[in-house]
Amino acid sequence: MKCERFVVNAAGRRVPTIVNGKEMIPFQGIGKYKPGGRKYAPPIPSCLDYPSNGDKTLDSLEEALKRCGLKNGMSISTHHHLRDGDLISNLIFDIAHANGIKDLTWVPSASFPCNEPLIRYLEDGTIHHIEGSMNGALGKFTSYGGMKGCAVLRSHGGRVQAIQDGEVKIDIAVIAAPSADCFGNATGAQGPSACGVLGYSLVDMMYADKVIVVTDNLVPFPCMPFQIQGNYVDYVVVVDKIGIPEKIISGTTQLTKSPDRLLLAQWTAQFCAEAGLLRNGIGIQTGAGGTSLSVGLHFHEQLKNNGWKARFGFGGSTQYMVKMLEDGVMDYILDAQAFDLEAVRSVKDNKNHIDLSVYQSYNFHSKGNYTSLIDIVILGATELDTQFNGNVVTHSDGLLLHGIGGWQNCLHAKCTILPIPLFRDRIPVIVDQLTTLCGPGELIDVVVTERGIAINPLRKDLIEKMKNSSLPIVSMQDLKAQADAICGVPDKAAISDKDEDTVAVIKWVDGTVLDTVKRVLV
Amino acid sequence: MKCERFVVNAAGRRVPTIVNGKEMIPFQGIGKYKPGGRKYAPPIPSCLDYPSNGDKTLDSLEEALKRCGLKNGMSISTHHHLRDGDLISNLIFDIAHANGIKDLTWVPSASFPCNEPLIRYLEDGTIHHIEGSMNGALGKFTSYGGMKGCAVLRSHGGRVQAIQDGEVKIDIAVIAAPSADCFGNATGAQGPSACGVLGYSLVDMMYADKVIVVTDNLVPFPCMPFQIQGNYVDYVVVVDKIGIPEKIISGTTQLTKSPDRLLLAQWTAQFCAEAGLLRNGIGIQTGAGGTSLSVGLHFHEQLKNNGWKARFGFGGSTQYMVKMLEDGVMDYILDAQAFDLEAVRSVKDNKNHIDLSVYQSYNFHSKGNYTSLIDIVILGATELDTQFNGNVVTHSDGLLLHGIGGWQNCLHAKCTILPIPLFRDRIPVIVDQLTTLCGPGELIDVVVTERGIAINPLRKDLIEKMKNSSLPIVSMQDLKAQADAICGVPDKAAISDKDEDTVAVIKWVDGTVLDTVKRVLV
Repeated sequence: MKCERFVVNAAGRRVPTIVNGKEMIPFQGIGKYKPGGRKYAPPIPSCLDYPSNGDKTLDSLEEALKRCGLKNGMSISTHHHLRDGDLISNLIFDIAHANGIKDLTWVPSASFPCNEPLIRYLEDGTIHHIEGSMNGALGKFTSYGGMKGCAVLRSHGGRVQAIQDGEVKIDIAVIAAPSADCFGNATGAQGPSACGVLGYSLVDMMYADKVIVVTDNLVPFPCMPFQIQGNYVDYVVVVDKIGIPEKIISGTTQLTKSPDRLLLAQWTAQFCAEAGLLRNGIGIQTGAGGTSLSVGLHFHEQLKNNGWKARFGFGGSTQYMVKMLEDGVMDYILDAQAFDLEAVRSVKDNKNHIDLSVYQSYNFHSKGNYTSLIDIVILGATELDTQFNGNVVTHSDGLLLHGIGGWQNCLHAKCTILPIPLFRDRIPVIVDQLTTLCGPGELIDVVVTERGIAINPLRKDLIEKMKNSSLPIVSMQDLKAQADAICGVPDKAAISDKDEDTVAVIKWVDGTVLDTVKRVLV
Repeated sequence: MKCERFVVNAAGRRVPTIVNGKEMIPFQGIGKYKPGGRKYAPPIPSCLDYPSNGDKTLDSLEEALKRCGLKNGMSISTHHHLRDGDLISNLIFDIAHANGIKDLTWVPSASFPCNEPLIRYLEDGTIHHIEGSMNGALGKFTSYGGMKGCAVLRSHGGRVQAIQDGEVKIDIAVIAAPSADCFGNATGAQGPSACGVLGYSLVDMMYADKVIVVTDNLVPFPCMPFQIQGNYVDYVVVVDKIGIPEKIISGTTQLTKSPDRLLLAQWTAQFCAEAGLLRNGIGIQTGAGGTSLSVGLHFHEQLKNNGWKARFGFGGSTQYMVKMLEDGVMDYILDAQAFDLEAVRSVKDNKNHIDLSVYQSYNFHSKGNYTSLIDIVILGATELDTQFNGNVVTHSDGLLLHGIGGWQNCLHAKCTILPIPLFRDRIPVIVDQLTTLCGPGELIDVVVTERGIAINPLRKDLIEKMKNSSLPIVSMQDLKAQADAICGVPDKAAISDKDEDTVAVIKWVDGTVLDTVKRVLV
């Protein structure tokens, strides 16, 4: 059985304490669980096992995987900096399949539509399960119970926490790198498949037993400034092409043109101004969705008009954020992910566009996180309940279609604001019971919809500041009633409620199990 | 007893297998010892134990040390980037002493004359022993048997190996930082006490249980570009002054004016040219001593005249190396240590002056080292024997006066050249029996003296290339005979040969014990 020994956790959700044969700790409430123990300790290597001329290149990824001892049951990690243009992740499993390897765990930092071909390897048992995210087709496949094991979904910060803590042991990390030298120093900033930064791979580099760098742009030693450090790298493989540049650009980084979304953005910006959240020296994370980008434009304008500067903007970085930097209304971009080519260029050109791994900034099992220093963070959700609890991974029909990304991590910001439409395709976003709980309501501060803005009752300070606002401040109950009046109360989705139909678990930032995803029945 | 269970190691030296109560492995020959086991695993922290506003500042170093649980028997580490201008290291032990703490181990990356006041704490038992280097007065004190425990000397690379492998557990790392933010992000590149880089502290930051950043220049979050990552930092302490800028400049970075030394430099450069070692795309490390700097000037000129470029120069960096970079005859400076203010400026100004920790480049228990990729390295020695074995820590009178620095690590370069005078103050440099063995002769390729150049018989390739040279190529035996003829055979130094008089051990780069230092009797 994929999941065993279910208990009800502190969020009232029924969760397993054994997943894929490994013990898990149920969610104990925000700020309640403290880890014991020590970080994962990789084997001590020796220079004696590496060529003294520094040349670690091998002829093929297959040879590299074999030299790393690829075998049944291993965990293989990859990054998603090449986004939907990634040509390497699937190749790993083609090789594994061709060599008859079974029961692998794939630990990507995120997955994309380009990974759809991996479904056949999930079907034939080459891949046992995924620990990461399952977007689109992979998610649908998972939802219908196709995966041999139970998927484990983590936030970006949760992924590095899990690897650091040894919750997930990475046997082999494969790092696709837009430029690398023969020793394994690598960077995403340059090369024909440039993707800006490689920050999601830092934790894999540090903790994986074996590390393979795959590049299509071998440069003379030393590849500097480095992002990946060659002294952690076992092998370097040169291939023709690691990525399709035009698909490295995220599809999400287009400004919205929808009048409703533009209204959400405008109200969000106005809310921030009126509540005194927007100020000189602020730290912000606006995200890359169409509405979020539009909020960012409003912030840019307001900062400029007031003669203010944002102290830092958190990436994923976009052309709009780069404009803020280059326009002098932002001191630093702290960036773990470049969303478009302007951002890629900026990593290379701007000294203050900082390559900053999520390992450094989002890991809850760290000596502090950057997330709690961000003043305003703009996030989305697929569902919210009236207690402000949020879902980002499943839709109301039960289908698992998105990863958690940095969403859970960013909930720790000083003010989290969710500009979301009240309904999508006549499906209300505000529901009685979340399909999947991804973030406890006590961390979500403001919900901005086109029919009113709800402030979390816990944020008395914001309620007080907005009491004379011209903005339509309402309650979540009001919003829900409006949505129901328009859409009607939707039918119950055809989702199993049986323990044995658990297809995925949702981890919280501290490694505990917050909720499960159940099999979709029709 | 400080040292127990002596055996004769593969270098023929009698060494203890228990030092300060800890088991040690005797040297087994170059490339013979491979580590088992896993890297040291620090405790898993949690954000819950750190302020969510990111402000880790405390009022005093004393408070920070107390909060870190300072107690008898702990190991405290510091870096030496502030060189002889360091105002923080001694302060730690003043505080420990005032609080009655005993039996500490001090693990500096190097010590300087400014650390002489620590002798009183070695005398009164506040400090049990030092693992690092003991220069000048501290070394003399150690040589006469003053230290309670046995000193352990390691190379820069050996220090990071030992900390990474858990051979030395750092309880508290104190990192003096020329600029830092309240979260603990820090850099040496800016501030009134700027020292360029902080690379020696990277391993302390990663592996110490507790990390304190001490700064005299608190900047708004985020302190970027970072060298020290705040997510590893427990506390930040702001003091008036961490260093005396004019003493941060090393005393060693002056060009030699001695005609003999200038001859050594000229012959060294000529040797490199004639042997075909100097070429386009070369990697070099010339060091910061007067003769080495002069060799560097010759290289600069020759590269320029030939229209060649060095691909990289390894730091410690100096104004002369910066000139090579800015003059376009060097692509990159890879730097763990800035030796003068021009180098400090360059770290800040030049994108290709790379902050590169010895942890990344010198650690023998890594997946390869940069050192073996360096084409020419220029080093010194206090003594050599006719088998090319070298000593850098003691003088022939037995006094321990220098640290190993990066010397052992750099011996792994493709060609190691030691330009040294045949005698100093009428004491021959080439001896029958080394006072202390620091580096096996098989790794030392060429010795350049003012009376001839000896090539290691193992380097048949170099002997062949130089067979028609106008340079005076001689044997080490010849050189020794010349020195003896001029100086006479010196009296035997008054050094104990008893096991119980072991005052220090010399570690090799792989963590094994290469030799001991004995008590000086008069």
